[in-house]
Amino acid sequence: MSTTVNVPESSNVAKGKAVAVAKPGGWKKGLAIMDFILRLGGIAASLGAAATMGTSDQTLPFFTQFFQFEASYDSFTTFQFFVITMSLVAGYLVLSLPFSVVAIIRPHAAGPRLFLIILDTVFLTLATASGASAAAIVYLAHNGNQDSNWLAICNQFGDFCSQTSGAVVASFVAVIILVLLVIMSALLLKRH
Amino acid sequence: MSTTVNVPESSNVAKGKAVAVAKPGGWKKGLAIMDFILRLGGIAASLGAAATMGTSDQTLPFFTQFFQFEASYDSFTTFQFFVITMSLVAGYLVLSLPFSVVAIIRPHAAGPRLFLIILDTVFLTLATASGASAAAIVYLAHNGNQDSNWLAICNQFGDFCSQTSGAVVASFVAVIILVLLVIMSALLLKRH
Repeated sequence: MSTTVNVPESSNVAKGKAVAVAKPGGWKKGLAIMDFILRLGGIAASLGAAATMGTSDQTLPFFTQFFQFEASYDSFTTFQFFVITMSLVAGYLVLSLPFSVVAIIRPHAAGPRLFLIILDTVFLTLATASGASAAAIVYLAHNGNQDSNWLAICNQFGDFCSQTSGAVVASFVAVIILVLLVIMSALLLKRH
Repeated sequence: MSTTVNVPESSNVAKGKAVAVAKPGGWKKGLAIMDFILRLGGIAASLGAAATMGTSDQTLPFFTQFFQFEASYDSFTTFQFFVITMSLVAGYLVLSLPFSVVAIIRPHAAGPRLFLIILDTVFLTLATASGASAAAIVYLAHNGNQDSNWLAICNQFGDFCSQTSGAVVASFVAVIILVLLVIMSALLLKRH
């Protein structure tokens, strides 16, 4: 049976230290380092997703007198949202690195870990929302929809479609990494 | 300074009980009960979203010789995905109620809480993905997209549009509830 006991620091330092040494916290250290590495992967994935989507732009080589056919991420509100959110997620992950380092150095401090799990959850929701909505538009661009008479545009805008699809895949990688980060933080929070 | 000390149950029951009584764990009990109530709200929101989307069906009163204009959730793959995922989320939340009750009765047991936070995170991702992708389609149905020549269909299918929009709003309520559940579980996991 494990019970939490408040040990006053001044009176009982020796006992507290003995307990800390006796505890086998190796897997915690490993998980904390894994957390840091996964964050680096998440930065790469979300930055890659934002950059790939942000540079998607295709102009068709033929045009009429009044109109030139062009598709870029600007054409779709969802894709603009995608670029903004993925940049935000990348920025958050960069800013979270120092907290991850603090959590490696002091594996028994619950504060940084709690801070990370709450913000990770919020940015997981943000990343999932932008990735999934962009996926819905990419699906429409590939397949169209008969009942609403929306035609597939990927026959004309092939490069644009493959680039946006790649960005969606990268965002899903970032989502999976964020899910892993939340689960690992939960494991690390358990029983300090 | 708070340190975890392993107290053998047989030798030191009196001390363990004294510590448990002395600890003010009232807010933990309150959060655990709040968790249960939020789960009930989440069931209502996700069931409502699935039912609203699943019953969306509108047939226009005019038709040509070969074709009758009809829109239902079947028309869009994204909306089918929405109905399936929202039902799954509602089912998971119902099944999670017993674990939430166990966590109320035994607020110091980390097992059920860890189980809940991991599955909550997974289903949060699922709910966010389906809600956001449906929102992207609903936005297109309302506004259309000029560059890809997709026309807004809400002028014709007004009832269908308002019903699907309502379902999306309900799914966002479910997402917010799941985010709160994850954050509350993290707070409850901290320092047992």
